[in-house]
Amino acid sequence: MIDPARRAAFEALDAEDPLAKLRDEFALTEGRIYLDGNSLGAPIHAALRALRTAAEDEWRGQLIDAWNDADWIGLPRRLGTRIGRLIGAAPGQVTVCDSISVNLMKLISGALALQPGRTRILSTEDNFPTDLYVAQGLSALLGPARCELVCVPREELASALDDRVALLMLTQVDFRTGVRFDLADMTARAHAVGALTLWDLAHSAGAFPVALDAAQADFAVGCGYKFLGGGPGVPAFLYVAERHLTKLAGELAAQPLSGWMGDARPFEFDGRYAPASGIDRYLVGTPPILACRALEGALDVFDAVDLEDVETKRLALSSALIELIEGSEVADELLLASPRRGEDCGSQVAFRHPEAFALTRALVAEGIVGDFRAPDLLRVGLTPLYLRFVDIFDAACRIEALLTSGRHRDPRFATPTRVT
Amino acid sequence: MIDPARRAAFEALDAEDPLAKLRDEFALTEGRIYLDGNSLGAPIHAALRALRTAAEDEWRGQLIDAWNDADWIGLPRRLGTRIGRLIGAAPGQVTVCDSISVNLMKLISGALALQPGRTRILSTEDNFPTDLYVAQGLSALLGPARCELVCVPREELASALDDRVALLMLTQVDFRTGVRFDLADMTARAHAVGALTLWDLAHSAGAFPVALDAAQADFAVGCGYKFLGGGPGVPAFLYVAERHLTKLAGELAAQPLSGWMGDARPFEFDGRYAPASGIDRYLVGTPPILACRALEGALDVFDAVDLEDVETKRLALSSALIELIEGSEVADELLLASPRRGEDCGSQVAFRHPEAFALTRALVAEGIVGDFRAPDLLRVGLTPLYLRFVDIFDAACRIEALLTSGRHRDPRFATPTRVT
Repeated sequence: MIDPARRAAFEALDAEDPLAKLRDEFALTEGRIYLDGNSLGAPIHAALRALRTAAEDEWRGQLIDAWNDADWIGLPRRLGTRIGRLIGAAPGQVTVCDSISVNLMKLISGALALQPGRTRILSTEDNFPTDLYVAQGLSALLGPARCELVCVPREELASALDDRVALLMLTQVDFRTGVRFDLADMTARAHAVGALTLWDLAHSAGAFPVALDAAQADFAVGCGYKFLGGGPGVPAFLYVAERHLTKLAGELAAQPLSGWMGDARPFEFDGRYAPASGIDRYLVGTPPILACRALEGALDVFDAVDLEDVETKRLALSSALIELIEGSEVADELLLASPRRGEDCGSQVAFRHPEAFALTRALVAEGIVGDFRAPDLLRVGLTPLYLRFVDIFDAACRIEALLTSGRHRDPRFATPTRVT
Repeated sequence: MIDPARRAAFEALDAEDPLAKLRDEFALTEGRIYLDGNSLGAPIHAALRALRTAAEDEWRGQLIDAWNDADWIGLPRRLGTRIGRLIGAAPGQVTVCDSISVNLMKLISGALALQPGRTRILSTEDNFPTDLYVAQGLSALLGPARCELVCVPREELASALDDRVALLMLTQVDFRTGVRFDLADMTARAHAVGALTLWDLAHSAGAFPVALDAAQADFAVGCGYKFLGGGPGVPAFLYVAERHLTKLAGELAAQPLSGWMGDARPFEFDGRYAPASGIDRYLVGTPPILACRALEGALDVFDAVDLEDVETKRLALSSALIELIEGSEVADELLLASPRRGEDCGSQVAFRHPEAFALTRALVAEGIVGDFRAPDLLRVGLTPLYLRFVDIFDAACRIEALLTSGRHRDPRFATPTRVT
C-alpha cells in the first residue's frame, strides 16, 4: 500500500510551487479532484464573471449597441491575438470562430488551393476522429481526384511522407495516450518534401508552450474549452501563417465557407462576396458572443502565466503519478499507456485496465474525476494551474484503495450508458 | 403634430391585449423602447436564468458529467423539437447547430445531391448577403459545372424558375423592407418545375406562424438570436424534410461537413465516418452548450404563446405605426419602404429617409432603439411579445419631434463608424 506518511513530501512540493496561488482563480468544488480538464476545463472565476457581464450588462443593458460599445465585433480577433501568444503566433494569424471540425474544412481547402497538382492528405489512423471525418467529407464532395485522405500507423508516417502529399494533418497530442509529436521536427520533415502542415492543438493550447511561427507551421486549429477553460462548446481557434494569408488573398475556393462575417465590408450588405484581408476572412456567421466573452475571461488567467512553468510542474505531476501507481499494490493491473518520458507526452497520463470503464465511474463516485476512453483506458488529465501535488497523491491512494477493495465491480458502474 | 390626447386610445389597446402579460418575461430597461428585436432579441428572464444555471450549476457543479446528468448531449435535438413547433415541423426534422451560414453550406450540398443533372441555385439579388456568399463559395469550390448561383430581381423570379433550377433559395422576409414571400405558394411553384426549396427563416421564426411541413418545404435555416431571443450569436437551426433525410441517408457528400457529432457513434472514436441517422447527422462539432441553454430558457416563453395571437398583434402595431407617421408632420420626409398590407410583411416596418443614419443614432440617444440599413432605411422591428401599443405611439411622437427639431443633425450623429 502507498505509505500515507509520504503525503508530507507532496505537501512540501505544494508549498514550494510557484503556480500554487493560481488555484484560487478556479471555481472548484471542495473534495473533488478534477482530472478531466483535458476534456472540459474547470471554470475560472473570471470566465464566469465575464459571462455574467456579457449577459446581464452588455446584452441586457446595451442590447444591439453592445456590438460597438462593448466591442463584440472585435472579439474574434482580440481573442485570437491572446491565444496567439500561447501558441507562438504573432498577431494577425489567429482568430476564434466555429468548431475545430468546421475550421478543419476551411484549412484543408486552403492547403489544397496552395498545392496545385497534389491531392493527398496524410494523417495517422489514430488521429482524433473528427479530423479524419472532415477530410473524408471533403473528399466525398470533391472526389478522390482532388482530395484523397491517406491514414497510416504513426510509425509509418516517415515513409508515407513523400512528394505526393499536399498536407500533413496531425494532432499534436494523442487524445488517448497523450503521446506528443515534435511539432517543429514533423513540420520540417513535411516541408522537406513540399508538403504543408495542419496541426490540431486541441490538447496543446494552454497546456504547454507551442511555437507555431518558430516552427514555420502552416495551419493549426485548437479548442477553447479544454485547457483554455472557456466553457462547454465555446468556439475553436484557427491559425494561418501570414505568408499563406497573403498568397490566398484573392482565391475564393481557398476558404469556401464564405459567410458574411468574413466579407471585407459585411455591413454594406453587398451581394458579391469579397473576402476580408488577413485572418478575418475565416469568420463565417455571427460570432457566438456569450461563449467568446467567457473565453475572454478565462484568458485573463493565462496572461499571468508562463507556460514553461506550467510544463515544468506538469512533468513533476506526471512523474509522481506514474511512480506512485507503479509502486502501489495495483501496479500489475494498471499498465501505463502513455510515454514514460514526460517530454514525449501531453498533459495527461493514461493507464490500461480491463475494467477501465467501471473503474472510471467508481472513481467519479468517490470524487476522483478522470475519464474513460474505449476500449480500456483510464485517462487522467493534468492541469497544473489548479492541481496540487497532494491531489495526485490522494488520487493515487484512492485508485489503489478502490481497486484492491473491488468496489468498482458494483453493478451500478457496469453499464456504459454514458456519452462522453 | 400627433395629438398627445390620442395616447389614451393606445393605452386602451394595451388594456385589452391578451399578450400584455408577456412583457414581464423580458428583462427590459425602463424608458427605452427597443425596436430592434429583429436584429438582436431582448433578453428573456428565463434565458438569463438558464445561462446562469448552465454556467454556475452545471459547468461548475457537474463538470464533465453534465453531458449526461444535465443532458447537454441532447440539447440540439431537444431545442430542434421545440423550434419545430414554431415553424410547423414535426419532430425529428430540426436541430440546432452552427450558424445560418454554415448550415446553408450543408443544405445546399444536400439539395445538389438530390438533383442529379441540375446545378442551378436560384435566388433574389436582394437576398441577405450571407445566403448568396455561401452559394458563391460552394460554387467556387465545386466549379460552375456542379453549382451555379443565379440571382434575379424578385419580380423576375417566376420567369427564372424553370427545369434547370435545382434549388430555389429564398429568405422569407426581406431584411431591409420586411416584404414577405408566401412560403407555400413559392414552394409549390418550385416543385412544379422539379426544383427544391431552401428557406431562410431568420426573420420568421418566432415572429409569426410558419408551416414548413404543410407547405412541403424541403430545407430551411433560421436564427436563434433574433425573434427567438437566445442571445447574441447563439446557434442557428436547420430543417430537413423527413423524406429527404431518408433519401440522403447513405450519401456522404450530401452533408460534407462530417464532424464527429454527426457520426452515428461519436464516442466509439472510430476513424471511418458513418453518418448518424436522421437530423443528427447535421451536427458537426461539439455543441455550444452555454448558448444552447440560454436559447432553451428563451423558448420557455414561446411554449405559452400562440403565434397567431402574435401575428394579430403585430398587424395592429404595424398599422398603427404607419398611420401615425403618415398622419404626422414628418409624413413627407419618412417614406414607407415596407408593404402597406401587413400580411405581405414580416415583423418590421422600414421607412426611407435621406438622413436615416443620423436619425437612427439620434433616436437611440433618446431611448428609441431601431436600426439603420444602408443606404437610407430606418428599420423598426416589432416584437409583439413585449411591445405595448403606447410604445408605438411614444416612438412615433418622438420620431416626429426629433425630425421637426432637427436634433438629428448634431455632428455626433453624423459619422457612420458603427458596425451594425
